[in-house]
Amino acid sequence: MVDSNDFRKWGKQMVDYVADYLDNVEKRPPLSKVEPGYLEKLIPSSAPDKPDRWEDVLGDVERVIMPGISHWHNPNFHAYFATANSYPGILADILSDAIGCIGFTWIASPACTELEIVMMDWLAKMLRLPTDFIVSEGGSGGGVIQGTASEATLVSLLAAKTKHIIRCKSENTEMDNYDIMSKLVAYTSDQSHSSVERAGLIACVRMRLLKSDDKYSLRGDVLKEAIQKDKAKGLIPFFVCATLGTTPSCAFDNLKEIGAVCEEEDVWLHIDAAYAGSAFICPEFRHYLDGVEFAKSFNFNPHKWLRVNFDCSALWIKDRADITDAFNVDPLYLKHEKQTEVTDFRHWQIPLGRRFRSLKLWFVLRLFGVKYLQEYIRTHVKLAHEFEALVKSDPRFEIVTEVIMGLVCFRLKGTNEINEKLLKTINEDGRIHIVPANLRDTYILRFAIVAANTSSNDITFAWEVILELAEKVLHECNHFL
Amino acid sequence: MVDSNDFRKWGKQMVDYVADYLDNVEKRPPLSKVEPGYLEKLIPSSAPDKPDRWEDVLGDVERVIMPGISHWHNPNFHAYFATANSYPGILADILSDAIGCIGFTWIASPACTELEIVMMDWLAKMLRLPTDFIVSEGGSGGGVIQGTASEATLVSLLAAKTKHIIRCKSENTEMDNYDIMSKLVAYTSDQSHSSVERAGLIACVRMRLLKSDDKYSLRGDVLKEAIQKDKAKGLIPFFVCATLGTTPSCAFDNLKEIGAVCEEEDVWLHIDAAYAGSAFICPEFRHYLDGVEFAKSFNFNPHKWLRVNFDCSALWIKDRADITDAFNVDPLYLKHEKQTEVTDFRHWQIPLGRRFRSLKLWFVLRLFGVKYLQEYIRTHVKLAHEFEALVKSDPRFEIVTEVIMGLVCFRLKGTNEINEKLLKTINEDGRIHIVPANLRDTYILRFAIVAANTSSNDITFAWEVILELAEKVLHECNHFL
Repeated sequence: MVDSNDFRKWGKQMVDYVADYLDNVEKRPPLSKVEPGYLEKLIPSSAPDKPDRWEDVLGDVERVIMPGISHWHNPNFHAYFATANSYPGILADILSDAIGCIGFTWIASPACTELEIVMMDWLAKMLRLPTDFIVSEGGSGGGVIQGTASEATLVSLLAAKTKHIIRCKSENTEMDNYDIMSKLVAYTSDQSHSSVERAGLIACVRMRLLKSDDKYSLRGDVLKEAIQKDKAKGLIPFFVCATLGTTPSCAFDNLKEIGAVCEEEDVWLHIDAAYAGSAFICPEFRHYLDGVEFAKSFNFNPHKWLRVNFDCSALWIKDRADITDAFNVDPLYLKHEKQTEVTDFRHWQIPLGRRFRSLKLWFVLRLFGVKYLQEYIRTHVKLAHEFEALVKSDPRFEIVTEVIMGLVCFRLKGTNEINEKLLKTINEDGRIHIVPANLRDTYILRFAIVAANTSSNDITFAWEVILELAEKVLHECNHFL
Repeated sequence: MVDSNDFRKWGKQMVDYVADYLDNVEKRPPLSKVEPGYLEKLIPSSAPDKPDRWEDVLGDVERVIMPGISHWHNPNFHAYFATANSYPGILADILSDAIGCIGFTWIASPACTELEIVMMDWLAKMLRLPTDFIVSEGGSGGGVIQGTASEATLVSLLAAKTKHIIRCKSENTEMDNYDIMSKLVAYTSDQSHSSVERAGLIACVRMRLLKSDDKYSLRGDVLKEAIQKDKAKGLIPFFVCATLGTTPSCAFDNLKEIGAVCEEEDVWLHIDAAYAGSAFICPEFRHYLDGVEFAKSFNFNPHKWLRVNFDCSALWIKDRADITDAFNVDPLYLKHEKQTEVTDFRHWQIPLGRRFRSLKLWFVLRLFGVKYLQEYIRTHVKLAHEFEALVKSDPRFEIVTEVIMGLVCFRLKGTNEINEKLLKTINEDGRIHIVPANLRDTYILRFAIVAANTSSNDITFAWEVILELAEKVLHECNHFL
C-alpha cells in the first residue's frame, strides 16, 4: 500500500507538475470549452477494487481534468475577482494537511488556535484596524479565519440577531423569539453581494436592499430614512452590511455616513470588503476604510487578493462575547481544562471542524513580506488603469464607473443587446474570459485583473482581442440594420 | 520574489519533511503540553516588511508550531473520532491548490463540478445507497461535498424548512413565514451531535432532543409519540435527524422504525452518519444503513474514516429541487449559458466559493482501491475489539456500550469522580490521549482508534498505561478513604 517512499517520489513529481503547470498556464485557455457531461465519459462509473497505478492517476490529470478547467491563473482570465494562488500558500497547505489536526478547541492543537490569533493580529495591524479588534493590544474583540465572505456575513448577522433578541427580551418580557424575529430588519445596498441577501434568507430576517446613489454607493441619508420608516412601523432595525468594493462594479459604500447612522440608531455595522480589503495594506488606499471604527465586524478575503490560497476569509469582531453568545453549545467531549483561559474558535463559526489555515497566512506574509504585497496590489491597480486608458482612447466605448481597484467596468456605447452580443463573442472566441454585470438596467462588461502574472502585455492583448471582436459585432449589427 | 525554481526546491523539502514527520509521528506526544499564550512569545508581533528566509520559515515549523501540536496521527492519540490523513489525499490537495479555481458554477471549471458528481456516485455505489441518490442511475437527487457534517445538517434542515414553509403557505394563505416558523418542530435524539442542536439555533426552529433507549438509540415509538403530542398542540413536525454512530458512544438510532414514522408523518428524515458511514462500504456493516430508503438526505464524512484529508463531508439529497429551492439567489455575474443543463453547486451549500475537493476523493479511491479501504475499516474495528477484550479481562473495569465500530466506551466500576480522576491522570501523564463523555449521568472514557498506523502493539501499550494509572488512582483513593 501507498507508503512514505511512494510519497517522497510522487510528491516531488507533483511539485514539478505544479511548477510546470503554473510556469506554462498562459498556454492553456482561460475558459474551458468542454460540453456538459464530458467527464463521465472519460472515467469508469465506479471506484476500482484494486489500486490504480500512480502513473495512470497523474496521467489522467491531463487527460480528464485539464480539459475541464477554466484556468483562473492564466493572465488572460479577467472574470469575477482576483483569486489568490501562491507557492508559499501551497507549501503551507501541504504542511497543514500532513499535521491533519482538527482545531475546534485550543487543546486539540494549541498552535492551530494561537497562530491564528497572532496572524489575525498581524493582518489587523497591516490594515491599521482600531485596537478594539487586536488581541495583542488588549482589544475586546479579535479575528478568526472563516471559509468565505458568505460565512463571515452570516456569522456576523447571527451574532447581531442574538444580541438584539436578548436585548428585546430583557426590555419586553412578553415577546417570544419569533415575535422579535418577525420585527427585525437588516439593511444592505442594492449592489451588495448575493451572499448578503442569502444570509438574510438563512437567518430568517428581512433584508432590505436600499437604493445606492449614482455612483452605486449606499449613503447615510438613505439608510437613515429607511430605519426611521421601519421604526415608525414598529419594526426593529438591527443590522447593516456595508460593502467596500461591490462585486458588480467595485463601488464603495459611504462608510463614514453609514457608520454615524448605525451609531445613532444602535445598529450592528458589518463591513464586507471581501475583494478590496487587501488593498487597505497600502497607505494610499487606507482612507477607504475610514469609518471602520463604527463597525462591530469587518471582513475581507486574503484568498482573493493577498496571495493566500482559498480558503482564508478574515473576520474581526469588536466584542468576543457577541459571537460566542450566538453559537455556544458545549458538550463534554469538547470541554477541556483550559477553556476558561483560551479561545475556542468552534464558538466563532458555523462548522465545528476547522483546518490549520493560519499556516497559509504565516508562510505568505513571511515569504513575501508586506512591502512586496503592497507592490503586488499596486501593480494590479496600475494594470486596471492601463486598461481604462485603452478603453477611453476609443470613442465607441465608455467607462461606466470610476476605476479604483483592479476592476474596470466598461461597455460599448449603445444598447444592452450589443454589449450582450460582445460578451458572448468574446467568451466564444476564448482568448480572454470576462463576465458581465447589471448596474440597474445597464448591462456592463467587467474586466478584472485576476492572475498573479498578468502584465502590461496581457492588457494590450486583451484590448486588441476586444477591439477585434467589437468591430466584428458592430459590423454584423450594421449589416443587420 | 518567490518563483517556480524556489517552489521546486522548497516543495521537495516540504515533501520530505512531511514524510519524515509521518514516519516518526509516534515519537512526538499525542497531546501538546504547552501553556496558553506560548506561541505569541516565540514570534514577532507584526508581519515582516521584507521576506524572511525559507530556511527560517521551515526551521520555525519545529521551533514554533510542533510544540503546540496535539499529534492526531500519533498511534497513541485515541481522542474524539478518527480523522483522515493520507498521502493520496495530500497529493490531490497540492494539485487542487495549484489549479486554484473557485468552483461555484459549472462554467467556472466544469471538471470541478463534474468530477464531484461522479465521485459522489462512486461513493454512493460503494455504500449501496438507493438509486434515487445516484445521478448516473437517473436518480432525482445526487451528492455534494460539504465542509463538515455541521454544514450538511444545517443545509438539510434549511431545505426541509423551506419545503414545509412553501407547503404550509399553499395550504394556509393567511400564515406568514414567522407564523409558520414559530410552529415548526425538528427532532433528534439526546445523543446527537452538538451541531444538530446548533443547526436548530441557526435556522430558528425548535429542536427537541428525544430520549434515547437504554442502548442510547432513538426508537420509533418515542418519535411517534412526540410528533403526535406536537400535532395535538397545533405545531408542525417537519424534520428528524437520526444518527448512525453517535459521538458520545457510537450508538445507532433505529433507522427502520424512525424511517417508517417519518414516512407516515411526511417529515423530512436526515441521517447523520458522520463517523460510522465509512464502514458501510464493508458488506458486513451495510445492514446498519438499512432504512436509508426513507431518508431525504444522508451524510457521512470521508474526512473521518475514509482516508480523505479534511475537509470532505459527503451529503446526498433525494430530490435536487428541495435543496436548490432553499438557497437560490441568482446575480448576473454568476449566470452562464449552460446553467439550465448543468449542476451549479453554489445552490447546494451555504458558502458561495468552493475548493476542488473531489480530487481528493478521486486520488484516494484510485490509489487505495475499495478492497484496501474495506480492510482499513476492518482493522480499526478489530483493534477496538482487542481493546474491549483487555478491558473485559479486568474486573475493576466495565464496558459501557456495545463496541460496534472503532470506539470503546469504558470506565472504572465506581463513581464518576474516580473516572474523572483517571481521565485527568491519563492526559497529564501524556503517553496516550483520550477524552470523556457523559452518557446520561454516567461519566465515561472514550477510547477511539484514530491514527492510520495504529497497531495491536499500540492497543496493548495504551491498556498498560491505563492499568498503571488506574492502579495509581485507585491506590490514592483508597489511601484517601
